[in-house]
Amino acid sequence: MNAHAHTRLRVVRAGIDTYQQPVVYMHRDCPVCRSEGFAALTRVQMHVGTQQVIATLNVVTDDHLAVDEVAVSEAAWAAVMPAEGAFATFRHPEPAASAGALRAKVFGARLDDAGCLALMRDTAANRLSDIELAAFVTACAGERLDHGETLALTRAMVAVGQTLDWGGGPVLDKHCVGGLPGNRTTPIVVAIVAALGHRIPKTSSRAITSPAGTADTMEVMAPVALDLTAMRRVVEREGGCVVWGGNVRLSPADDVLIRVERPLDFDSDGQLVASVLSKKVAAGASHVLIDMPVGPTAKVRSDAAAQSLAARLIATGTAMGLTIAVFPTDGRQPVGVGIGPALEARDVLAVLRGAPEAPTDLRDRALAVAGALLDLAPDTPPGQGLALATETLKSGRALSKFMAICEAQGGFTEPGEAPFQAPVLATRAGRVQAIDNRRLAKVAKLAGAPGAPLAGLTCALRIGDPVANGQSLYTVHAQSPGELAYALAYAQIHPDILSLEAP
Amino acid sequence: MNAHAHTRLRVVRAGIDTYQQPVVYMHRDCPVCRSEGFAALTRVQMHVGTQQVIATLNVVTDDHLAVDEVAVSEAAWAAVMPAEGAFATFRHPEPAASAGALRAKVFGARLDDAGCLALMRDTAANRLSDIELAAFVTACAGERLDHGETLALTRAMVAVGQTLDWGGGPVLDKHCVGGLPGNRTTPIVVAIVAALGHRIPKTSSRAITSPAGTADTMEVMAPVALDLTAMRRVVEREGGCVVWGGNVRLSPADDVLIRVERPLDFDSDGQLVASVLSKKVAAGASHVLIDMPVGPTAKVRSDAAAQSLAARLIATGTAMGLTIAVFPTDGRQPVGVGIGPALEARDVLAVLRGAPEAPTDLRDRALAVAGALLDLAPDTPPGQGLALATETLKSGRALSKFMAICEAQGGFTEPGEAPFQAPVLATRAGRVQAIDNRRLAKVAKLAGAPGAPLAGLTCALRIGDPVANGQSLYTVHAQSPGELAYALAYAQIHPDILSLEAP
Repeated sequence: MNAHAHTRLRVVRAGIDTYQQPVVYMHRDCPVCRSEGFAALTRVQMHVGTQQVIATLNVVTDDHLAVDEVAVSEAAWAAVMPAEGAFATFRHPEPAASAGALRAKVFGARLDDAGCLALMRDTAANRLSDIELAAFVTACAGERLDHGETLALTRAMVAVGQTLDWGGGPVLDKHCVGGLPGNRTTPIVVAIVAALGHRIPKTSSRAITSPAGTADTMEVMAPVALDLTAMRRVVEREGGCVVWGGNVRLSPADDVLIRVERPLDFDSDGQLVASVLSKKVAAGASHVLIDMPVGPTAKVRSDAAAQSLAARLIATGTAMGLTIAVFPTDGRQPVGVGIGPALEARDVLAVLRGAPEAPTDLRDRALAVAGALLDLAPDTPPGQGLALATETLKSGRALSKFMAICEAQGGFTEPGEAPFQAPVLATRAGRVQAIDNRRLAKVAKLAGAPGAPLAGLTCALRIGDPVANGQSLYTVHAQSPGELAYALAYAQIHPDILSLEAP
Repeated sequence: MNAHAHTRLRVVRAGIDTYQQPVVYMHRDCPVCRSEGFAALTRVQMHVGTQQVIATLNVVTDDHLAVDEVAVSEAAWAAVMPAEGAFATFRHPEPAASAGALRAKVFGARLDDAGCLALMRDTAANRLSDIELAAFVTACAGERLDHGETLALTRAMVAVGQTLDWGGGPVLDKHCVGGLPGNRTTPIVVAIVAALGHRIPKTSSRAITSPAGTADTMEVMAPVALDLTAMRRVVEREGGCVVWGGNVRLSPADDVLIRVERPLDFDSDGQLVASVLSKKVAAGASHVLIDMPVGPTAKVRSDAAAQSLAARLIATGTAMGLTIAVFPTDGRQPVGVGIGPALEARDVLAVLRGAPEAPTDLRDRALAVAGALLDLAPDTPPGQGLALATETLKSGRALSKFMAICEAQGGFTEPGEAPFQAPVLATRAGRVQAIDNRRLAKVAKLAGAPGAPLAGLTCALRIGDPVANGQSLYTVHAQSPGELAYALAYAQIHPDILSLEAP
């Protein structure tokens, strides 16, 4: 028994989303709160029936909450799933099993297999606080993970999650390192590769900080929130799928780490490699192509950085038993015309349909990526990947396959168009010198993407294109006049998102 | 202007204490929330009138909050102090000025003076999130701060806070590294040193994770929440004081760092030295004695660790212009009989009054510390510190001075006694082999200390003392029967807080 095990508090839902970190709210005069104290970032272990969660304690100082109640955040609620009127008991949590491994790494020791496993197990189970996760990410930053540690971390991330088994034979997959706005090649690549008879069970993410993830874009055209059984049925029938990975829980530790990695933005090749490859291995892939955009406002900013990251991806991927190649691409500017879920979906469909307005850069890149992936596969005649991909797209077989996949996932829907649109105009003439991917993505987000699926922007200009004074640089799309106004206000104070040089 | 500058939300008080980190709560359908997104740990900059604060965004998913309202945590409320019915506007915060210095340190560069200053300025102004603070602490952990960086960090901590000026002449001060339960020598040392005509303007902290801080203990006997003007008046009249440092804002950056240092518990000599010495320099001290308890459950666990830390304290202190000495003491077991604010105050008064029940270990240690501090002072005949201190205590001059200080701070009160008390009994005979300071402190906290000032425990046994079966090991004091029960339940499952060897 424990000092608080007999202190029962009635559980109420706080209705507060603290992202993934579980938080519990107690009245300052409640007995648990009094004895655990008002200390910095106190953690408590809450038990409800057979469920338990470790949460951060926040103290309620007014009378919204009774002294015999505990209010729980959405993440804590999801972890314990309390019945109506349930009671919770509390314990002071013992240090996480991985505390020793974390401390050793912080103080300069190397991570071994057991340490990585303990850390990823506690990470996936949400037993580490945000500040402990931040300490781990910091201790691994820069060059502080060597090849052996990267491999150990990749294995540990796979070990603590679900692993898919496709029953033998090659399983193809692709991944793009670092989001380039509009670079939505995945649905096209999957359609081409599956049309050629390969297996390509693709799981994709929703946007976290970008205006659209592949799952958001695909969802405009077909259901993506499939569970594992439904996903398997689609792949068995059509060879490929494009579903949201969130219901599948591949590499759940990585999903948790992201919550501190994104805001800290500490690049670490070792953690990036473990993150990418653990998901591919867990998804059952055997042949993997990595699309790596390189450019000043992309994730990988120089050729030297690209080479070093590619070497580590290939070394670790090979050690994990993958056939893997890295394909460097132009990361200086967006791809396609649309940025935002529906607008990117329209580009994807235009390419698949061979429509005259289809963006050539998106088509060419999708073909190049599909070709490089096909070149990895065992049955492709040497160097014939691109030709095969091009023929499959031109013949309409990729379009047919894509429609069949959408039907298998639950039915195809034609993307709609946003009711509010306004252009952003050039205030002088010139030639496009550079495009700020990050700020352009920000405009699309302020316009409502991805929450408002029709929102975003369209931009057909590319580096080197001439621009006349008063010409439209890009057009903002929004589902409400308010969101249109926010996006335009931001665009107005950042006139150099497309920077022009004198003509 | 900014994309959100025209989005005004009405400010309401959330009544939630998130410790020091400012948090704002917005409805998920509110325009600011929609465009900033549900991203991991989003930070927003809130402006109310001329005040502003950077806060973490939490999302409210039910209808407690209107879409045109923002609820703010206590720390955010204190930062902007909104008038009744005030409105707030929001911006996406630019990266903190110190982001570059933090990133460089994480990636292995040395911290220079400018980098330290930027980091401490942003830390003190609460512009860094908890995960950024955790990254900083991790990047400095172990031996990752060299002598030059320690000095730069100490200077930066002083520079961003208030500095007291006592107008020339020696100013004495003391500090104890790492809390040993009951080790409440400060009020006795201040009384002795001030009675001898020295200036000793002591600021102390409240408990953060311990059952009592010096400020909590002193507050049982006299007011301690004095502002700088009131503190100055006391010191001008009596030569010394014992006040709470929280109203004085010496080294405010350190106060913020503590919120992640405590839960992470990463020892770093460099940060400890900067923390301790920045407060002494800011308080205007010229002659400083550091009491350093050494023992297996104390902060400093070995003689080797003590020597290394002492060398760094002396090197940095000397470079900061202090006359400084380190005094290692026995850190294996508590000092005095009482643990908890009032119970420690009773020990202090018993020593000052020369009462027969006064704990000899507390008296001897207070005299030793006072003696060593006096030996540092310019006017003490060589080696006469201890004799002077002993004579001052015995003669009653220290008691008179202490009462005068209490009167000057607002009036003396005799500490009361807790209404609920129960002994914890030995379940076998033996001799006390070791005492677990941390768990003993935990019992006192579960009993209600320091929030309930009369709560805590009394323990007169020391290592080597014989114990009979059924004898009282220690007595728990509480202000409510419930808290008494919590403490006893914990004591019951930890029978080895005093571990016994066969007699």
